[in-house]
Amino acid sequence: MKTDIILLGHGSGGKLGHQLLDELILPILAAGAVTDQNDAAILAAPRGRLAFTTDSYVVDPLFFPGGNIGDLAVNGTVNDLAMVGATPLALSVGLIIEEGFPVTELKRILESMSQAAQRAGVRIATGDTKVVPRGKVDKLFINTSGVGVLEHELLITGKGAQPGDQILINGTIGDHGMAVMASREGLELQSTITSDCAALNGITHQLLQALGRNLHVLRDPTRGGVATTLKEIALQSEVELTLDEASFPVNDTVGGACAILGLDPLFVANEGKFLAFVAADQATHALTLLKNHPLGRQAAIIGEVTGGASGKVLVRTSIGGLRSVEMLAGEQLPRIC
Amino acid sequence: MKTDIILLGHGSGGKLGHQLLDELILPILAAGAVTDQNDAAILAAPRGRLAFTTDSYVVDPLFFPGGNIGDLAVNGTVNDLAMVGATPLALSVGLIIEEGFPVTELKRILESMSQAAQRAGVRIATGDTKVVPRGKVDKLFINTSGVGVLEHELLITGKGAQPGDQILINGTIGDHGMAVMASREGLELQSTITSDCAALNGITHQLLQALGRNLHVLRDPTRGGVATTLKEIALQSEVELTLDEASFPVNDTVGGACAILGLDPLFVANEGKFLAFVAADQATHALTLLKNHPLGRQAAIIGEVTGGASGKVLVRTSIGGLRSVEMLAGEQLPRIC
Repeated sequence: MKTDIILLGHGSGGKLGHQLLDELILPILAAGAVTDQNDAAILAAPRGRLAFTTDSYVVDPLFFPGGNIGDLAVNGTVNDLAMVGATPLALSVGLIIEEGFPVTELKRILESMSQAAQRAGVRIATGDTKVVPRGKVDKLFINTSGVGVLEHELLITGKGAQPGDQILINGTIGDHGMAVMASREGLELQSTITSDCAALNGITHQLLQALGRNLHVLRDPTRGGVATTLKEIALQSEVELTLDEASFPVNDTVGGACAILGLDPLFVANEGKFLAFVAADQATHALTLLKNHPLGRQAAIIGEVTGGASGKVLVRTSIGGLRSVEMLAGEQLPRIC
Repeated sequence: MKTDIILLGHGSGGKLGHQLLDELILPILAAGAVTDQNDAAILAAPRGRLAFTTDSYVVDPLFFPGGNIGDLAVNGTVNDLAMVGATPLALSVGLIIEEGFPVTELKRILESMSQAAQRAGVRIATGDTKVVPRGKVDKLFINTSGVGVLEHELLITGKGAQPGDQILINGTIGDHGMAVMASREGLELQSTITSDCAALNGITHQLLQALGRNLHVLRDPTRGGVATTLKEIALQSEVELTLDEASFPVNDTVGGACAILGLDPLFVANEGKFLAFVAADQATHALTLLKNHPLGRQAAIIGEVTGGASGKVLVRTSIGGLRSVEMLAGEQLPRIC
């Protein structure tokens, strides 16, 4: 690349656009792959139903402890495929770049995307780049869409929760949201909070293989956190959930930062966590499996499905009371992903 | 919807986010469909190879004669699938909205997306909404990604051009780019220029059915226009192309506006046009077929593949000379799509 910054012309169909693609984007995102540069990528016929998902990433700042917008965008979309029990096949990458954006930062972000895709075992198959004038977008937004295949007949949906099910999580809550928040606001904390940003398709695949029809729901508690995600599931499945506050795994620094800022970690975003609803008699088996995986060392059972029809989420507090959890109206922490 | 404008909270995982989805987006984009609201949509196992593509749309202004960012985003991605010979199956929609954006405008845009998807026979299967603070994005950007199926064994790529092939286009060039340009700049013209924005999967499917292996290349000349697209194909196929300037179909008002602004219509974006490279003995058959389709009334043969290896695109001018066409360096008309 002959310039240090992205120019408007890099978003064109012309020479500069081709140069950005050939000299920066493709060598990183399509390393080693044959790239045909047609209007769409061609994938082999999949053996099973398809999963299809999309997410746009507008996180601020672009770089934060534990990750950046690039690996966040790859992991987030891989995770959405994993949460319906699909094996990720291919991702698309849509970049919207502000004129003047530093090429070195773009390079770092693309490299993170490539590494994240490799770790998740998914191919970046197609992409698009737009450049808009200064002030028309805040630095860089990334859309990733994903296609996966369901190599089984199971139906993993938010409607699957059944009375008696145990609710598991694979580790500490609120890490991603507080890492971004602390980084954005320049909070001085005893230790740095690191985002949990990770691809979950490996660990959920193991769980699915081990539990089969005893795995009823999978969902990653991103925007809105564990509380909002569980409330969604309670409403979709028409069940009542009871959580045990003492069982919530929370990193000390995250808990402290939340207390200072008046935030409840239960509502803070995660990017490497998932909730699993598991038939009661398989719960300890599932917990052991999670704890044996690098992404599940601090896994815990945090609650259970205690009844039908209500759509309520109750939390048993440490002093023995029961409080009801509702979704927040709006955004506790904007631009967290 | 209880508010006239989009609030930051509408991009949250909380109540306002669910309200925007349930009261505005889903009733329009998923009209009549069962919506499960899981992390990914599930599609039936396709019978054939897959095509996968993505595009972000940042057009300015959002509304222009002949369309808006919504139908542009649907048609553009449908067309990218059609250009590799795929039947579109499903689209994703990623909205990035500026805080304060009028709900009535969002509604109009979503309705256009829904209508465009219906016309193209494709389902909007999954989506994502982000809202960013005022000044962090210019009004509204949309990403659409698409999945299609190849129900045949043909390989339609930019590498397929062969010496002797005739080059067809399905109608007038430069309409979309000049419609957006005239609208943005408030040009006073004799008559309004209307974008050609349209889904091409119907007409290309007919062509593919009729020609089979005699159809060698399909590509839509969007950013960079006919000239850039043909230059790409010449380089990919390693052939020389010769175009006949007198044969280019150009709407009079578009030609006039281009002359005033010093633009060459050959470099102006189209959104409802495609180039087809066809074996010489099938060219008149193909032309007749195009002219019988509503999207091909003004179809023309505009050139041919005149040799191998050079990657040159030559234009035979109306006074009999030959000029060489090169890609522009940068962007002639930014934010045209």
